[in-house]
Amino acid sequence: MKRDEELIRLILDSPIEEILILLDDLHPVDVLEALQAYEGNPMDLLEKLPDEYIAMLIDEAEDDEKYDILTLFPQSQQKNIIEEMSSDELADLLGSIDTEDQDTLLESMDKEDREEMKELLSYSPETAGGIMATEFISVKESMTIDDTLQFLRSTSPDAETPYYLYVLNDQNVLRGIVPIRDIITSPPDALLRDIMSENITAIPVEMDQEEVSNIFQKYGYMAMPVVDPEGVMLGVITVDDVMEVLTEEHTEDMYRLAGLDEEEVVDGTVRASVQSRLPWLLVNLLTAILASAMVSLFDDTIGKVVALAVFMPMVTGMGGNAGTQTLTLMIRGLAIGQLTPENARQILRKEFGVGVIHGLVLGLIVFVMGSLWEHSLTFGMVIGIAMFLNMIVATMAGYLIPLLLRKLGVDPALASGVFVTTMTDTLGFFFFLGLATLLIEYLI
Amino acid sequence: MKRDEELIRLILDSPIEEILILLDDLHPVDVLEALQAYEGNPMDLLEKLPDEYIAMLIDEAEDDEKYDILTLFPQSQQKNIIEEMSSDELADLLGSIDTEDQDTLLESMDKEDREEMKELLSYSPETAGGIMATEFISVKESMTIDDTLQFLRSTSPDAETPYYLYVLNDQNVLRGIVPIRDIITSPPDALLRDIMSENITAIPVEMDQEEVSNIFQKYGYMAMPVVDPEGVMLGVITVDDVMEVLTEEHTEDMYRLAGLDEEEVVDGTVRASVQSRLPWLLVNLLTAILASAMVSLFDDTIGKVVALAVFMPMVTGMGGNAGTQTLTLMIRGLAIGQLTPENARQILRKEFGVGVIHGLVLGLIVFVMGSLWEHSLTFGMVIGIAMFLNMIVATMAGYLIPLLLRKLGVDPALASGVFVTTMTDTLGFFFFLGLATLLIEYLI
Repeated sequence: MKRDEELIRLILDSPIEEILILLDDLHPVDVLEALQAYEGNPMDLLEKLPDEYIAMLIDEAEDDEKYDILTLFPQSQQKNIIEEMSSDELADLLGSIDTEDQDTLLESMDKEDREEMKELLSYSPETAGGIMATEFISVKESMTIDDTLQFLRSTSPDAETPYYLYVLNDQNVLRGIVPIRDIITSPPDALLRDIMSENITAIPVEMDQEEVSNIFQKYGYMAMPVVDPEGVMLGVITVDDVMEVLTEEHTEDMYRLAGLDEEEVVDGTVRASVQSRLPWLLVNLLTAILASAMVSLFDDTIGKVVALAVFMPMVTGMGGNAGTQTLTLMIRGLAIGQLTPENARQILRKEFGVGVIHGLVLGLIVFVMGSLWEHSLTFGMVIGIAMFLNMIVATMAGYLIPLLLRKLGVDPALASGVFVTTMTDTLGFFFFLGLATLLIEYLI
Repeated sequence: MKRDEELIRLILDSPIEEILILLDDLHPVDVLEALQAYEGNPMDLLEKLPDEYIAMLIDEAEDDEKYDILTLFPQSQQKNIIEEMSSDELADLLGSIDTEDQDTLLESMDKEDREEMKELLSYSPETAGGIMATEFISVKESMTIDDTLQFLRSTSPDAETPYYLYVLNDQNVLRGIVPIRDIITSPPDALLRDIMSENITAIPVEMDQEEVSNIFQKYGYMAMPVVDPEGVMLGVITVDDVMEVLTEEHTEDMYRLAGLDEEEVVDGTVRASVQSRLPWLLVNLLTAILASAMVSLFDDTIGKVVALAVFMPMVTGMGGNAGTQTLTLMIRGLAIGQLTPENARQILRKEFGVGVIHGLVLGLIVFVMGSLWEHSLTFGMVIGIAMFLNMIVATMAGYLIPLLLRKLGVDPALASGVFVTTMTDTLGFFFFLGLATLLIEYLI
């Protein structure tokens, strides 16, 4: 907080030349935070910053804030600012506004930039094409280290990833990669052809962003090239974009399991929260009605043995917990690629085994509890067997439902939870009350 | 699969010189995967690889596999291999074995390396010190670009992060950072002092790894320096380590919410799964007993109005769902730093508002349903009011319990879920059956 105020004061009070020196050492994120904390007119601060720096601020801002900052400026200046922005961030900005505003901005751009943006916007936002940037340093394999150094010094190319040079042939097909440190440690007359790494792992432009993040995690690269099916290099994805993807995908999985819209934020409004959560609660109400309907089939039995009402939440509650355990493991396993077609059958066997063991242990415990509570071995048997069966239902539903949904093309995190608890609730009640009905003469 | 076999064949059949050329272009992760897929004696492959490459393989292996690979080699070779390993990975290896084996390995190391390892092992594994590496390129501010280039070419320093040079003074205090691309684009006689960036964000060595990952995400750096309280530079953290932390922390949060041990993997054994999940199910059984005890207080009432048993799972089930929504939002908000002491009060008000609105909507729905089902407005009122109250309990428990646990120093993800559902279950039953008992004369 203190720092934000100091920073604001410095920018407001310093002459332009000093601000430029100051900015050179300041991360745009810090200036952006100061700007958000500033209670006066944001233009007081912004008008003291060069267009290039404003572009960096907008690059760092959240997608839905970018356009708001940009449109504080007159149209003529907007054109200069977006020219300085990173292509991937500009595409995110354009993707977040309505088509009319989008067209106006695109019109204002140079033809070449406009074409490039249109292409970036044509990729689905959750694929490699949707997160890549188009700025990278490309070189030819016939260049020497000396040529390369001169090229870098004279053009100071603007690149999303200044750590690698990409060697392209005349058709722009990616042939090799040279880490920039190799430029420093190789002899000046060495040819790029001879020092470049040719065993390249490139990302296909249509790959899903979740898979992209798994590849980055596997190899630990700082940046990876994105290519089209012919191997033509289209852009680069850097690890900081992948971190954003990781966090986004994590939040999505967690929220979907709990029945929250992935856009909801903890410090949002009541209205947004209700819109995010109420639909999900209504879906759950439907499944609760299903469970209640199952109970109502047996209301005669409950009327005769009220203790059934006391114990029935135990059978379904434990089933729900056990099902959620398996489900969470499956969702996470799918997300991080630990669950594959090769090991699916082995996992099925394991989950069945776990269900049987949990069923035996917990079934035995509630058998003893139920027998003592009601002074009836039959009652103990009824709840023990129901618990045993429901534990197996729980792991099997937790295993099968996400795989089934995935096959149907539905995100398993989105809908699995409700199906799993519907299964454990309705079947739990059915086993418990059904058995009691069969054995009713021994229970009263 | 196919690729693994090809790779194995190539390594087995090629003469050593060709293997060296082959390895130059192969990512150790790929060789590691091939090795894991190979069904023969792993030494068939490993004995054809140089120690330096074996060190890279072990660097890439999971913590619990590292030692198994290392101990395939005779003691004398082990010493050479660990000398080539990254300090952070070697520390992870040492941290995963028992103290006796640890001492043996430490003994075999040079004094300097041993001291360094002991220091790394002294940091808690979930802090900056626990994930940093000690290899970085340090330079002096009086060096020119030319000096620096010569230094880099002559020593080819081994560094975890070849993208930045760290400028230290004589006391090893970090004074500035020079990105390696600036070395290329600056005039040869420029002094590092004049081109280095002095506004450094450094990570304190004892910072929690979750906070470290939030800082990396905020600034988007590839690597950050780690310093002690006096500003002495101790090591670097690279973004690929941070990605691992992110994935680890996320798995932990998701698993803990569901009641799974964070070590469990989807393709593990039945035994490991039962050990991970059964303790949690037993805790849940205790809370289920609490809920059942609450129901049993009202068994007279249920005996008179069996429909109560039909509807009671609805009140508690919906309460559990609504509580889990708020809880998930809170856990995620705490993890990514969106929930701060400053906005906590505003969030409390919002959650209360959400609880009231959900309570009104769902309360009204079940009021209508209950009234129609039982042909009794009183019955409808009982379930409607119970639902209304339980929705407020749900959001309030989902809000308060994680904050309370955090204050007590317990990971909120670990234990919140069970407390929240205990609250919504027992209070849900209490509201519903208690109201019914109060109004029993109008219900029968």
